Amino acid sequence: MSLISAINKPLKGIVPPMVTPLNDDGSLDSASVKKLIEHLISGGVHGIFILGTTGEFSGLSYQTRRNLITQTCKQVAGRVPVLVGITDVSIEESIALAEFSVKAGAYATVVAPPFYNNIDQEELTRYYLELADEISIPLFLYNMPSHTKLTIELDTVIKLSSHERIIGLKDSSANAVYFQSLCHAFRDQPNFVLMVGPEEMMAETVLLGGYGGVCGGANLFPKLYVELYEAAVARDFEKIKSCQNIVMEISRNIYQVGQYKSSYMKGLKTSLSFMGLCQDTFAKPLSPFSESEIQQLQSRYDDVVSSLSVSA
Amino acid sequence: MSLISAINKPLKGIVPPMVTPLNDDGSLDSASVKKLIEHLISGGVHGIFILGTTGEFSGLSYQTRRNLITQTCKQVAGRVPVLVGITDVSIEESIALAEFSVKAGAYATVVAPPFYNNIDQEELTRYYLELADEISIPLFLYNMPSHTKLTIELDTVIKLSSHERIIGLKDSSANAVYFQSLCHAFRDQPNFVLMVGPEEMMAETVLLGGYGGVCGGANLFPKLYVELYEAAVARDFEKIKSCQNIVMEISRNIYQVGQYKSSYMKGLKTSLSFMGLCQDTFAKPLSPFSESEIQQLQSRYDDVVSSLSVSA
Amino acid sequence: MSLISAINKPLKGIVPPMVTPLNDDGSLDSASVKKLIEHLISGGVHGIFILGTTGEFSGLSYQTRRNLITQTCKQVAGRVPVLVGITDVSIEESIALAEFSVKAGAYATVVAPPFYNNIDQEELTRYYLELADEISIPLFLYNMPSHTKLTIELDTVIKLSSHERIIGLKDSSANAVYFQSLCHAFRDQPNFVLMVGPEEMMAETVLLGGYGGVCGGANLFPKLYVELYEAAVARDFEKIKSCQNIVMEISRNIYQVGQYKSSYMKGLKTSLSFMGLCQDTFAKPLSPFSESEIQQLQSRYDDVVSSLSVSA
Amino acid sequence: MSLISAINKPLKGIVPPMVTPLNDDGSLDSASVKKLIEHLISGGVHGIFILGTTGEFSGLSYQTRRNLITQTCKQVAGRVPVLVGITDVSIEESIALAEFSVKAGAYATVVAPPFYNNIDQEELTRYYLELADEISIPLFLYNMPSHTKLTIELDTVIKLSSHERIIGLKDSSANAVYFQSLCHAFRDQPNFVLMVGPEEMMAETVLLGGYGGVCGGANLFPKLYVELYEAAVARDFEKIKSCQNIVMEISRNIYQVGQYKSSYMKGLKTSLSFMGLCQDTFAKPLSPFSESEIQQLQSRYDDVVSSLSVSA
Repeated sequence: MSLISAINKPLKGIVPPMVTPLNDDGSLDSASVKKLIEHLISGGVHGIFILGTTGEFSGLSYQTRRNLITQTCKQVAGRVPVLVGITDVSIEESIALAEFSVKAGAYATVVAPPFYNNIDQEELTRYYLELADEISIPLFLYNMPSHTKLTIELDTVIKLSSHERIIGLKDSSANAVYFQSLCHAFRDQPNFVLMVGPEEMMAETVLLGGYGGVCGGANLFPKLYVELYEAAVARDFEKIKSCQNIVMEISRNIYQVGQYKSSYMKGLKTSLSFMGLCQDTFAKPLSPFSESEIQQLQSRYDDVVSSLSVSA
Repeated sequence: MSLISAINKPLKGIVPPMVTPLNDDGSLDSASVKKLIEHLISGGVHGIFILGTTGEFSGLSYQTRRNLITQTCKQVAGRVPVLVGITDVSIEESIALAEFSVKAGAYATVVAPPFYNNIDQEELTRYYLELADEISIPLFLYNMPSHTKLTIELDTVIKLSSHERIIGLKDSSANAVYFQSLCHAFRDQPNFVLMVGPEEMMAETVLLGGYGGVCGGANLFPKLYVELYEAAVARDFEKIKSCQNIVMEISRNIYQVGQYKSSYMKGLKTSLSFMGLCQDTFAKPLSPFSESEIQQLQSRYDDVVSSLSVSA
Repeated sequence: MSLISAINKPLKGIVPPMVTPLNDDGSLDSASVKKLIEHLISGGVHGIFILGTTGEFSGLSYQTRRNLITQTCKQVAGRVPVLVGITDVSIEESIALAEFSVKAGAYATVVAPPFYNNIDQEELTRYYLELADEISIPLFLYNMPSHTKLTIELDTVIKLSSHERIIGLKDSSANAVYFQSLCHAFRDQPNFVLMVGPEEMMAETVLLGGYGGVCGGANLFPKLYVELYEAAVARDFEKIKSCQNIVMEISRNIYQVGQYKSSYMKGLKTSLSFMGLCQDTFAKPLSPFSESEIQQLQSRYDDVVSSLSVSA
Repeated sequence: MSLISAINKPLKGIVPPMVTPLNDDGSLDSASVKKLIEHLISGGVHGIFILGTTGEFSGLSYQTRRNLITQTCKQVAGRVPVLVGITDVSIEESIALAEFSVKAGAYATVVAPPFYNNIDQEELTRYYLELADEISIPLFLYNMPSHTKLTIELDTVIKLSSHERIIGLKDSSANAVYFQSLCHAFRDQPNFVLMVGPEEMMAETVLLGGYGGVCGGANLFPKLYVELYEAAVARDFEKIKSCQNIVMEISRNIYQVGQYKSSYMKGLKTSLSFMGLCQDTFAKPLSPFSESEIQQLQSRYDDVVSSLSVSA
């Protein structure tokens, strides 16, 4: 069975942090969830990560989170591994989500540090070890200092990696020195998976030892990111250059409308609505673009789609 | 009834952010909750604030939070107003806690900004207005930038204050310029309550227009903080000096054992355990002091208690 | 002689951080320096601090700094103590400025931490001790974390205070907990001077043990700040309230035109130009307000002046 | 002449940020300057950058800076381009250093933002344009947010690049998304030079469009970094892997002795002293390692040298 085989080798490739389609009343837009999952799988992605930052996990009720876990695992049906974000400030709620994910058939969980209290590396280490002890599903560390106010330091990662259920790390810091330090420290442990969040740096990290990317833009254009990943693996620099160019156009144009701290999230989800893959409805505290911002984004989105056609 | 009258005038005085007594398994230590509440009320506090940062709200399961709301309101039985922290990253969970608090008989809610996503003031304003619209209980804003990564700016507070259910703000920034700006902006709106978190600055803000303090140390020595507050109101500088001196001794000695970012929380709860008012059990990710740290704290605690006796 | 007597008792009161009047070519506007100094002294200030942050020290050439030191000491002629900012990233340049200040007749120097490299408290301690050893003039520590990226921690201040030439600290952090910690730690050392920078919190700190303020607004209205200081010393709360109210109006209106990080500096110097006390010429990288911003400021400035007349 | 030809094509390769050898009294250790320069040039570096952060520019007196500029240009004698850091908080002092550098025969200047005042992008833009207007030598922008508290944002770089004397940027942010954004924005302007500071990420950026690195470790082992650069240009992944591995060993072992914020600087300069290339004397506020730290570093240094021999 595909799930078993997935567990027996380290995860590699493109694992989109899936956007969470929502209805106006905040409930899950199940029809869009289905469409979006099929869109991703048909694009060749190597896994699907739900309830991450891009999945707006923090703004969702627990009921909505559970609904999404259930539906995603059922819809994916073992075709690719499903990773579930269970980041929470309460370890009990994280454990409950983990156990729910096990029953739903998820492959692994992804956990950023508890993000309210300011804590030290020692406390963080103890927290992760205790969480890993309490759950019965693999766990990826999730480094996200811009949101959690602390970095999972290299020495902490090394300590945590000795736990049998801690199998890798997703780094969203954009800090290339940090990521290279990880690649170096784990150079002889090929089963410890090291992926980056920011899609702009995915190719270069794969060239230098990374395992792939949790690329938000892969919600929109999964094939593009899979191609870029494969080009990096194959060291096909002509292909890398053409794909990277479009990835950077997406970054520059889709993710930077308005001066919002959430421009990335707004641009991504609104573009997905242009494709008919979800509504431009956000979990609080985020809110939709204004009408003029939508028009600006539509025009930029059309340009990106044109580049893609030319390139393809 | 006392509750109604409390609602008819602005809240003033000492409103301790109550520590949450826990058992080793993470469940609520109900016997200690009862003892602690009686300790606070017999000390003359003007209100009790549960599920704040000092109440370790973020580390508690929702079930534990609801248990604490129920027990506190029942035990307090209208003797002082009960304020309930409903801060959360999901507005739906905040609303659910607010409605639960209404039914339990709470006086008001206290809400810090959603603390995972990085957002702008406009989004923050919309968030608070929507939350205030959805609940049926008064709401205090809670400025806590060290934990939430953003300040509720003065202009945002002014906008929000026009909502009938937004009745005040607790400021834990320690920034005296910010707090004086609030006092000045609301100088002609005596019903908008402005309190500070850090006990070290409570007296000086009351002298200059503040309404009181949400003082963590009042869990230990409620009378001391009530006396300091009353001395500030009465402009009794001799009394202010002697009380402030002990408050600063507490700050210097009880809250600074170890080099933890959580030394305040550990010192406070462990000292309460010396008094038999709770166990030194913490919600994750915090953990108890080591044996030698406990001994160091015990010695410092004894000194503070001696100063108190001399002063009394 | 007044200078000797000033040295024999701790400095207290209002010590304006004097703005540096400049000509368009960046040279010192000596005529305005003269006028400004007389304006300050006739306003009753207790000292003058040149080459601080408000004095734009960092943007001035060393020649201009020396010219200002010479002219100020000569013009003041011992009527009040002159404090000279010698903050620099190079200790050799700081020492040279200190020795120049001694010869010019300055009372003391004021030194913020070296602000380029990121350093630890131990390195900072060694730095200050070495500097104090090398100079022959008293030194005030200057805590300014928003500009220097580090706080002079309480324990560091305590260690440094044992040096005979380190005689006090100016705190511009706006953190009332930090300042109260200093007041408490030095409660039995009345010769160690503790002043705050932000004028909005000056009165409350004087009420609770502070020695006065290095108030930028005192460039404009020295009498107002002297009155507020004296009212705080005298615990005249009616007077405190009326003066504090105008100080807050200045803060709200004069220092917040535009959305610049330098709005305080631009508003202050431009208002001084309305009074004919200097030109609205700034050291790089700051630049003058636009025409419309100047008009907006003029209107606000006129309102503040009206409040002052009514109050007087 | 080599200088002319260097100017006619964009700078590429390894440009070490040269350490500044100092005597105990803070003066320039000229004998070591000579040795170090010959060590670098014989290692094949493509340029030498003096008075950067690694060159401890901020801690040096202006006289020492000028002495270093003069000696370096004379000693290098046109064999490679000399870049001079003229970063300062006073634009007049920067201009003076630039003109001094021109006369000494430097190739270009390197300028980080003025680092005391907090400023906006618009003010920063105006600052750089005015500086570039006033000097007669090319200028590299220097992005160093950890030290200067602000990022030179992409749009600012784009605006500045239209000035004829602004010819490139050195990025020390370690932010791979930022650097890829630069590479993308300037993909059709091959004369605008984009280099990274952190050596750990040099290879991956060269693979994806970067021009080379300002690698601190190249002070120690210039050949290693030149080989890594050339391997990246040649896309020789076996060579990249072996060189990158040693670079990461250096990063992990040489730069992380002690828990200092300045561990990089201390480890680098002290290791150079092991080689006899300079003394372990630092500009204030930095100070030498303790004896035990030196022993720990020596042992690690020996290991690194062994790896290098094996690899060679």
